Amino acid sequence: MEVYQSREAYLKHLAATGILPSGFKVSTVPLEFSPQEKKSREPYRMNLTFLQMDEPTDSFGALFTRNRFPGAPVIVGREMLEQSEIQGILVNNRIANVCAPDGVGAARRLAHAAAKAAGMAENAVFPSSTGIIGWKLPEMEMAAAIPKLVTEHVSHNALDLAKAIMTTDSFPKLRSVRLGEGSIVAVVKGAGMIEPNMATMLCYVMTDLDVDRTLLRSALKEAVDLSFNRMSVDSDQSTSDSVIMLSSKKKPMVDEALFRQELISLLSRLSEDVVRNGEGTAHVMNVSVKGFDDDSTALSVAKAIVNSPLVKSAVFGNDPNVGRLLSAAGDFCGNTGVELDPAKVVLTIGGEVVYREGSFLLDEEKEERLYEYMKSCALPVPSPGYPIHSASVDVELEVPGKGRASVFGSDLSYEYVRENAEYRS
Amino acid sequence: MEVYQSREAYLKHLAATGILPSGFKVSTVPLEFSPQEKKSREPYRMNLTFLQMDEPTDSFGALFTRNRFPGAPVIVGREMLEQSEIQGILVNNRIANVCAPDGVGAARRLAHAAAKAAGMAENAVFPSSTGIIGWKLPEMEMAAAIPKLVTEHVSHNALDLAKAIMTTDSFPKLRSVRLGEGSIVAVVKGAGMIEPNMATMLCYVMTDLDVDRTLLRSALKEAVDLSFNRMSVDSDQSTSDSVIMLSSKKKPMVDEALFRQELISLLSRLSEDVVRNGEGTAHVMNVSVKGFDDDSTALSVAKAIVNSPLVKSAVFGNDPNVGRLLSAAGDFCGNTGVELDPAKVVLTIGGEVVYREGSFLLDEEKEERLYEYMKSCALPVPSPGYPIHSASVDVELEVPGKGRASVFGSDLSYEYVRENAEYRS
Repeated sequence: MEVYQSREAYLKHLAATGILPSGFKVSTVPLEFSPQEKKSREPYRMNLTFLQMDEPTDSFGALFTRNRFPGAPVIVGREMLEQSEIQGILVNNRIANVCAPDGVGAARRLAHAAAKAAGMAENAVFPSSTGIIGWKLPEMEMAAAIPKLVTEHVSHNALDLAKAIMTTDSFPKLRSVRLGEGSIVAVVKGAGMIEPNMATMLCYVMTDLDVDRTLLRSALKEAVDLSFNRMSVDSDQSTSDSVIMLSSKKKPMVDEALFRQELISLLSRLSEDVVRNGEGTAHVMNVSVKGFDDDSTALSVAKAIVNSPLVKSAVFGNDPNVGRLLSAAGDFCGNTGVELDPAKVVLTIGGEVVYREGSFLLDEEKEERLYEYMKSCALPVPSPGYPIHSASVDVELEVPGKGRASVFGSDLSYEYVRENAEYRS
Repeated sequence: MEVYQSREAYLKHLAATGILPSGFKVSTVPLEFSPQEKKSREPYRMNLTFLQMDEPTDSFGALFTRNRFPGAPVIVGREMLEQSEIQGILVNNRIANVCAPDGVGAARRLAHAAAKAAGMAENAVFPSSTGIIGWKLPEMEMAAAIPKLVTEHVSHNALDLAKAIMTTDSFPKLRSVRLGEGSIVAVVKGAGMIEPNMATMLCYVMTDLDVDRTLLRSALKEAVDLSFNRMSVDSDQSTSDSVIMLSSKKKPMVDEALFRQELISLLSRLSEDVVRNGEGTAHVMNVSVKGFDDDSTALSVAKAIVNSPLVKSAVFGNDPNVGRLLSAAGDFCGNTGVELDPAKVVLTIGGEVVYREGSFLLDEEKEERLYEYMKSCALPVPSPGYPIHSASVDVELEVPGKGRASVFGSDLSYEYVRENAEYRS
C-alpha cells in the first residue's frame, strides 16, 4: 500500500518520477482575465498549457468519449487521427468548449496559432479542453497568451502538466515507468464523483520508446479498456473524455508484450487515482465478478453493483449490506435476461463469505468485523490533498462461468451531494 | 394540483375515498413480540394483515419483480397464478422473507393457516411480505396471531390496509375510482428513494367490477407498464416488488376501454405517490422524451436522465443544469449506439427552452427564473407526513422521431444519503 505522509511528500514523489521522456517539453500560463473567470468561485484557476515535441511524430493515437454531445476538441481530434504527423497538444482547463457557438472554429484557430508560433505545421497540435459545458472559450485572451507559451515557462517535468490541467481534482495525478533506455509518463485530470457539468477526464500519455503507430494505437486501446473503462463513477462517458498518446521514438523499443503490460499497469493505477481523488469520495470500492458467460457480462454485473445508489450509500455508512449487494446484481440480471441462480452465488466482502447456497452468512461478530474493515478503508472528506492510502472496500461475487471483471467505483457521501448540488447556486 | 392542509386532512380524504369494493374486508394486528422487533429502532411497527374476500374468485392476477433474488412470497405467488381460485392475501411488513432459511416453507405454512382459520381452501391465500432482506419471519408468533385476524379488527376501509403495510413510507397511499355501480380501490407501499435493503413496493388492487380473468390480467399488465414501470428511483426492481389484483365480480362491468383507462390512471397516480413520499425526496422530476425510433428507446433515454446522479444532485440544488441533462442523454445514446444529433435536440425545463440547434439558450434572467421554478417544486425534507403539493420539475427532451415516454423520479438529497447510510449502523 502506497502511503504519503503529506501533500508535500506526495508532490515530491511526483516531481522525482515525472521527468518527461526525451523529446517532450511543457509550458503553462495562467489566464486570469476573462470576465467569466473573474466571476468564478472555483478553487482552481484557468491555465493554458502547451505540450510540445521537438520534432513531429507519426506515432500517436487517441481515444475519445462516445457521448453524443462531444466537445469541440473531441470533434477536431477525431479528424486529426487521420493525419500523418502530430507535434503537440494545446490544453486549457476551466471551460470545456462543449455546445458553445463556433466552438469547433475556436478550437481549430487556437491550435493552429500555437503550432504556428512554435514553428510547427499548421495542423500539428491537438486542441484539448476540460471544464464548464456551454461556455465560450475566451479566445482572444488565449490567443494573446500563446507567444509566451512557446518561449517562457518551459519545463521538462510532467508534474507541471498534471497540475495545470486540474479542475476540481484534489491532487495532481501522474504515473511513470522506466523501460529500458526510455520511459512512459502519463498524467490524468478527472475528479471522480465530483465533476459538476464538466468534462470528466483528460489523459496524456508520453513515451520516447520507438513504437510504431499501429502498435501504439492497439496497445493504447487495450490498456484503456482494462483501466479507464473499468472505473465507474457518475456515469461512463462525459462530453470531453480523451486519452491522447504520443511517442517521440527517440529510444529503442522494448519487448512488445512488456510494453503492453506496462501500459496497462500504468493506466490502471492512474484510473484508480481518478476514483480515489474525488472530494466526495469517502471509500473506494473494488467490485470483482467471477463467472457468467464472458468478461463482458461480468463487467456489466460489476458495474451494476458499483453504480447502485443503495450500495454506494451503504458503503459510505460502513454497512456490510449484503441484501443491497445481492439485490443490485439480481435486479440487473433480471432486467437484462442474464441467468443467475441464487443457490450458486457466493458473495464476499473484504475476503469474508457473507452469502452462500441461498442464505446469508452473517452474525453480529462478523458484521462488526466488516464494519471495522470498511471503516479502515475510509478516506478523509474533504480530501487532505494527497492520496492518504490505497485501501479499497473489496467485494467479490462468484457464480459459475469463466467471465472475469473488476470495477473501481466510489461511495455516495454527503459531500458528493453538496459538491454537485451547490456548484452553481 | 392536489393540496392537503395537514396530515389529518389527508387521512380524512383517504378514509372517505377508501371504502373497499363489495366482497372485501381487511383486518390487521400488530406483532410486537419478536426478539428482532424488540431490537428495532424503526419508526414503524410490524403488522400482520389479512385481506379477505367473502367468496373465492377466479378473477385475479399479479405481476412480480424480475429480480433474480426474489422473495419467498414472490416464488409462491408465481405458482399460485396457475390456480383456478383465490380468496385473499396475507401480508406482513418489517421482514421481507428474502434469502432466509426455509422462507418458502414459512410463507406457505402461514398462508395455509390463515386460509384454514377463515374457512377457505388451503391454497386460497397469497402470502406477501416487505421489509428487511435476510431475516427469518417470526413464524410461531405470526401463526399465533392468525385466529384473532379472522374474527377481530375487521374493517371495510382500505386505509387500514394502506397503513398496515407501511415501512419507511412517510404517509399511507391509496387511490380509488367509482365506476358505474362498482369501484376500483388500490393501495401501495413503497418509499421511493429511501428503501434500505427492503422490498421496494407492494401494491394491491381491489375491484368488484365483473371483469374476467383474461381481461383483468391484460389490463393490469398494461397499467403497470405505464405506471410503476415508468417510475425510477433507486433501481428498477427490488427483490419483492409485487402488484396483486383481485375482483369480487359483484357489480356489473363497465365499458372495457373505460376500465383499462381508469386502471392506468389509478396506478399512475399511485406510482407518483410512491416517488413523492420518500423521506429523502426533495423534488419529484418528470422527464418526458419525445422522439427516437420508438417508445422503448424514449423510455430508456428518459430513465438515463432521471437516474443520473449528477442530474439528481443538480435538481436537489435547484440548479437548471443543462450540461448535465444533455450529457446524461448523450452518454446513454453513445454507449448504446442510439443516434442523437446535437443540432436537432430541443431541451426544455419547466416549459422554457434551454437548448436548441446545438447551443445553450440561457441568460442570467432565465437561470434565475428556472431556479425559482425549481425551488417552488421543492418538498419539505423530512416529509410533513402528507403530500403537501403535487408539483414536479418538468424536463422535456425533443428529437426527431415518434417515440414517447415520461418517467417520474426523485432528486438526490443529503437526507437520501443519511437514510441509506445510517439505516443499520
